[in-house]
Amino acid sequence: MKTIRSQQLLTIALLAMLAFTITIAHAAGPLPSWNDGKAKQSIITFVEKVTRPGSPGFVPVPERIAVFDNDGTLWAEQPMYVQLFFVVDRVKALAPQHPEWKDKEPFASVLRGDVKAALAGGERALMEMVMATHTGMTTEEFEQIVKGWIATAKHPSTGRLYTGMVYQPMLEVLAYLRANGFKTFIVSGGGIEFMRPWTESVYGIPPEQVVGSSVKTKFDLREGKPVLVRLPELNFNDDHGGKPVGINQHIGRRPIAAFGNSDGDLQMLQWTAAGPGVRFCLYVHHDDAAREWAYDRQSQIGRLDKGLDEANARGWTVVSMKNDWKTVFPSEKK
Amino acid sequence: MKTIRSQQLLTIALLAMLAFTITIAHAAGPLPSWNDGKAKQSIITFVEKVTRPGSPGFVPVPERIAVFDNDGTLWAEQPMYVQLFFVVDRVKALAPQHPEWKDKEPFASVLRGDVKAALAGGERALMEMVMATHTGMTTEEFEQIVKGWIATAKHPSTGRLYTGMVYQPMLEVLAYLRANGFKTFIVSGGGIEFMRPWTESVYGIPPEQVVGSSVKTKFDLREGKPVLVRLPELNFNDDHGGKPVGINQHIGRRPIAAFGNSDGDLQMLQWTAAGPGVRFCLYVHHDDAAREWAYDRQSQIGRLDKGLDEANARGWTVVSMKNDWKTVFPSEKK
Repeated sequence: MKTIRSQQLLTIALLAMLAFTITIAHAAGPLPSWNDGKAKQSIITFVEKVTRPGSPGFVPVPERIAVFDNDGTLWAEQPMYVQLFFVVDRVKALAPQHPEWKDKEPFASVLRGDVKAALAGGERALMEMVMATHTGMTTEEFEQIVKGWIATAKHPSTGRLYTGMVYQPMLEVLAYLRANGFKTFIVSGGGIEFMRPWTESVYGIPPEQVVGSSVKTKFDLREGKPVLVRLPELNFNDDHGGKPVGINQHIGRRPIAAFGNSDGDLQMLQWTAAGPGVRFCLYVHHDDAAREWAYDRQSQIGRLDKGLDEANARGWTVVSMKNDWKTVFPSEKK
Repeated sequence: MKTIRSQQLLTIALLAMLAFTITIAHAAGPLPSWNDGKAKQSIITFVEKVTRPGSPGFVPVPERIAVFDNDGTLWAEQPMYVQLFFVVDRVKALAPQHPEWKDKEPFASVLRGDVKAALAGGERALMEMVMATHTGMTTEEFEQIVKGWIATAKHPSTGRLYTGMVYQPMLEVLAYLRANGFKTFIVSGGGIEFMRPWTESVYGIPPEQVVGSSVKTKFDLREGKPVLVRLPELNFNDDHGGKPVGINQHIGRRPIAAFGNSDGDLQMLQWTAAGPGVRFCLYVHHDDAAREWAYDRQSQIGRLDKGLDEANARGWTVVSMKNDWKTVFPSEKK
């Protein structure tokens, strides 16, 4: 009995300290890397509406689901998607085992260092390279390959690790939402198994809250040891109309907040907006050529055209990276 | 400042009450509907090993993933799967819109009340009925249909609601694991959208932690309103080797504990057992003809044959419903 009482007192003391810490943290204010303005205020107003008990917009904790696109929304996607750099590096790494690639497109172009020429083959060429580099191994082997690459590969123009090219203001949005009872999910056109090995340490998003494109896998026993083998067949394309499909398949309820940056996210935002009650949709607009990149309606990567029109028409939040963000990448933080 | 201080004091008081409540609850001991014995002890020993800080088997909270089969593991599956009763009731409900069913198998047999004859058509007949009753509507419409049915439909021999035919001892395992930092998932051969409308209220398992079989869905705009339409095409069969595939697809990490009752769960248990560190695999063995049903190696539904051999060979926990469970269904609770 004595032990239980002293344990209780310890628990109470610890919880009291926790409550105090929370109060202090809150005093500093959320979203410190955001400039004061409409965009920042819209996020805070939304969160206050859905979390204030008794508010007409109140949403119970289990229904506080927020979904985030990854490429261009949580990290940079120029001059091309990070996963494409991974494909290129894997083609080079695997080339010694594939002497035939020297004379076979799109591989030959990649090995000559001409990625643009390789991608001229369109969707078919891309999928051929993805399947050659992403399948044939077990899920565990692929995870190790991704972990090894993401720990060392550097962005060609900034020389940073790719995980250093995440957006500090968006990390703060993720943390702010979670501190307010939200479950945060990634819903990306990128490969689900390409993201999972690092999303927990980088974004605080665990593997089970990552939705993405995937290949089929097959259960097999290899010398009695169960493995999942990655097959060269597309299982799911998590982009455009695929995003609401993926959300329904993985999450099974409609998000109340959605964050994207391109037309590929539009259906996810529409799906989110169409639910009852208070809803929040946000587009990150890449308009900061000095600190990041500036692109929208004409871009091949991360095109934002129809989405921008719809955001303006419906009053969704459009974030100007240039004006709304004090800093872009974490290491610039003051 | 005054407000913050009094809010803090209130928080401290509430947290202290919470700590006290937790202490009381713990004093009663976990798994009260389990008889003392090897099965109950194996669950408790496992949980203590993976949760005790400094223990060689310690597992950090985010990796405490436990997966549960549904039919026959969390609720009854005799004389046939609950979802099959749903199919039968839906065929009857939809019959007025399908006059042709009167002369068309397998529907004609169902409408005559001969489900056994309908199922004699095998997998093809079953899938025909599933597609006729589970697709063509939006995801939201289907959710409402399931909610309406599960709230009222009664089991033919017990007269209970199906949600009253869940296993009290397994509800306690779910709660015990969650109280120890586990995330609990359902991984069922049943339809994912057939389970999600009620798993949160019945099992405390939210939709995003339900993995199951599914049909394909398609995003569409109907008069400007986004919908997901359920298509008559199988998307995923979450049984046997499909269970580890579904676990990898949805959860993205290997569970450390798995609970099943049939050969359809064997690959899930093998996949769970094959990870490093402390692992826990459990089979519920239906050997209680008086309070539930008794079946195993010869049963068409929930056959447990290879799984029972492997469980015995590998020392997995095999639960005797008859000997290990004080009560089976919640309302018998003393």
